[in-house]
Amino acid sequence: MNYPNGLNKKYANAINYGNRGMSLEEDLNITNQYYLENDIAVIYKKPTPITINHVDYPNRNDAVITNAKFKIPSTTDYNGIYKGKYIDFEAKETANKTSFPLANIHAHQIEHLRKIVKHGGIGFIIVNFSSLNRIFLLEANELFKFLETNKRKSIPIEYFITNGKEIKITLRPRIDYLKYI
Amino acid sequence: MNYPNGLNKKYANAINYGNRGMSLEEDLNITNQYYLENDIAVIYKKPTPITINHVDYPNRNDAVITNAKFKIPSTTDYNGIYKGKYIDFEAKETANKTSFPLANIHAHQIEHLRKIVKHGGIGFIIVNFSSLNRIFLLEANELFKFLETNKRKSIPIEYFITNGKEIKITLRPRIDYLKYI
Repeated sequence: MNYPNGLNKKYANAINYGNRGMSLEEDLNITNQYYLENDIAVIYKKPTPITINHVDYPNRNDAVITNAKFKIPSTTDYNGIYKGKYIDFEAKETANKTSFPLANIHAHQIEHLRKIVKHGGIGFIIVNFSSLNRIFLLEANELFKFLETNKRKSIPIEYFITNGKEIKITLRPRIDYLKYI
Repeated sequence: MNYPNGLNKKYANAINYGNRGMSLEEDLNITNQYYLENDIAVIYKKPTPITINHVDYPNRNDAVITNAKFKIPSTTDYNGIYKGKYIDFEAKETANKTSFPLANIHAHQIEHLRKIVKHGGIGFIIVNFSSLNRIFLLEANELFKFLETNKRKSIPIEYFITNGKEIKITLRPRIDYLKYI
């Protein structure tokens, strides 16, 4: 299997193990590659943040990290530029059929999205309900509105249907989310 | 020593070993933290891109990366938003007193900056001449101009003095680069 950005199979497995949604990530990376190649936008997934505890140097140009840990990210995973606008979003998958558990998004990622919107950027989340094969884009303001008016620990799919936009899966690009912002 | 973003001493050493300019990075991280806390801008350094080859799971919630390698980055290190504008830059240090060796910047990072400028973002490089204690900001367009009109493998400091902006070091923030764009 051919992963973009040099991600190899083991890495994919590692990430999947932690339920970090590799397959949505893969589709988004391919989509972003399409945007890049067709001069539509410049959007990248940030590298996975890790804390490095030990590095071996078998020789000067060949450093090997032998002990590191995954870190909780302080920002969202994706950002970039589209038509002169700053774009920032988080992408998540859930196997849940009726709602999206908010535990999937870290509090400081929501805080980050608040800052982005405040500074004039375009922020949103993309949620893949994998069991239903339905992907939604929910603008940050709609996410904030939900959080302000609800005490629920998950967002019902109805909220995405009513306040978000369902992204139609296409061949090229796969997840044409820029069409919906 | 207290590194921002959970970077620990060993990581700093690892990066220094590769001549990746940790101390400029440290100052910029603290500067960006200042911008964030004072609601001036939201700019982060991207995590160091790595390729993970092996992950151990002593228990389900405690993944340890036991084999990984540093990857050549496909983008610049820093990006974010300032006054509604997309900001993108690379920061480098050189001990050289008369010029900045272009080998310090990867070709695809320059290519990335070209795309950013084309899409309406603000791109630049920050170069610290560490032996001179002088830091310059050079806008991407001035960098491109140099590359188009020169075959030299390094940019003389005079070019930075004439076509760039020298950043005055201050206490808070340390490297107030946003003042110069």
